[in-house]
Amino acid sequence: MKFYYHLLSQPSRALYIFLKLNNIPAEFITINFPNGDHLTDEFKEINRFQKVPCIVDDDGWKLSESIAILRYLMSKYKSIPDHFYPSDIRARAAVDEYLEWQHINTRFSCGVYFQLRKKIDGLDTLWLRGKKFLCSDEISFADIIAACEIEQARMTGDDLFENRPKLKEWYERVKETTNPYYDEAHVIVNKIVTKNQKPKL
Amino acid sequence: MKFYYHLLSQPSRALYIFLKLNNIPAEFITINFPNGDHLTDEFKEINRFQKVPCIVDDDGWKLSESIAILRYLMSKYKSIPDHFYPSDIRARAAVDEYLEWQHINTRFSCGVYFQLRKKIDGLDTLWLRGKKFLCSDEISFADIIAACEIEQARMTGDDLFENRPKLKEWYERVKETTNPYYDEAHVIVNKIVTKNQKPKL
Repeated sequence: MKFYYHLLSQPSRALYIFLKLNNIPAEFITINFPNGDHLTDEFKEINRFQKVPCIVDDDGWKLSESIAILRYLMSKYKSIPDHFYPSDIRARAAVDEYLEWQHINTRFSCGVYFQLRKKIDGLDTLWLRGKKFLCSDEISFADIIAACEIEQARMTGDDLFENRPKLKEWYERVKETTNPYYDEAHVIVNKIVTKNQKPKL
Repeated sequence: MKFYYHLLSQPSRALYIFLKLNNIPAEFITINFPNGDHLTDEFKEINRFQKVPCIVDDDGWKLSESIAILRYLMSKYKSIPDHFYPSDIRARAAVDEYLEWQHINTRFSCGVYFQLRKKIDGLDTLWLRGKKFLCSDEISFADIIAACEIEQARMTGDDLFENRPKLKEWYERVKETTNPYYDEAHVIVNKIVTKNQKPKL
């Protein structure tokens, strides 16, 4: 399988971590989208939507959309621990609910920053209630997707964890569970975060 | 199962059609959100996100997010025809790809009208290529969700089908396959469309 990605793309990072963590055999191919490499005719043949991440399976079958890819991989590789996307229908529905919510919450609001604040507050107050991770006491793909989005927001230089101790604890837990791949996937992001960090008074 | 919905909510309509079409036993309960009925403390107990659609299963278990609900129902009711959300992993991935795309496409763009135009063009040129429905020659939940969104746009009074014959044919096909429930679900929408229709010159 070929995996096309870029570490500045949040869903790319989520899949990157997921693939490495679960030893899924894949050829990792960077598409330099800040340089416009996703806009070539060549890449259009790989993904008609001209976005990363996307995959091409060994027989040439193509798929885009990070969460559609996650579901496909869960069905294909039975060796992946079940908790990433549970097979129990209600546990799975709880993960599905988050995976939909994270989109829908951006849907009716405009302005990226406002969206992120709203979502971060939702994570803190609506999802992280009495559980170690977003949907249960075990990590699922919902946590990986959410943490990678939080990183996107951290690039603004704001301290998102101020007054949100529960969010901070969860974030550390996700990192701990997915490292060293989490840090590996965020090497570019972390450089930008360090550069933009506002000095503490 | 209790199904909370309102016919002005596009994902509510999609589930309404799906439930009726497949004879899924449910108590249909309207939540008059234009009147603010979703903002009561009572409804917050039913859905912490205070949105429709949502369900409460017979034992009190709750779920929101239309597409998470669709997936849950597909797992629960084995009598539902497979093509609505296929069990074959690649056919399913193709439907998943659409169900993600319809969110993601609204993600990085602001302005509802612009979003809808972009999405409608995407339906026409990227999805409806050489197939009767969006993901295969059979109807899936992707088609129902997409048609219900098109209806939302029709309320502006614009003729969305002008110069898009393929889209028009697909739309008629979805209606035909899902009626009488399609028209039943769109009874409020159709009144608004008629009222707002721009006279042809």
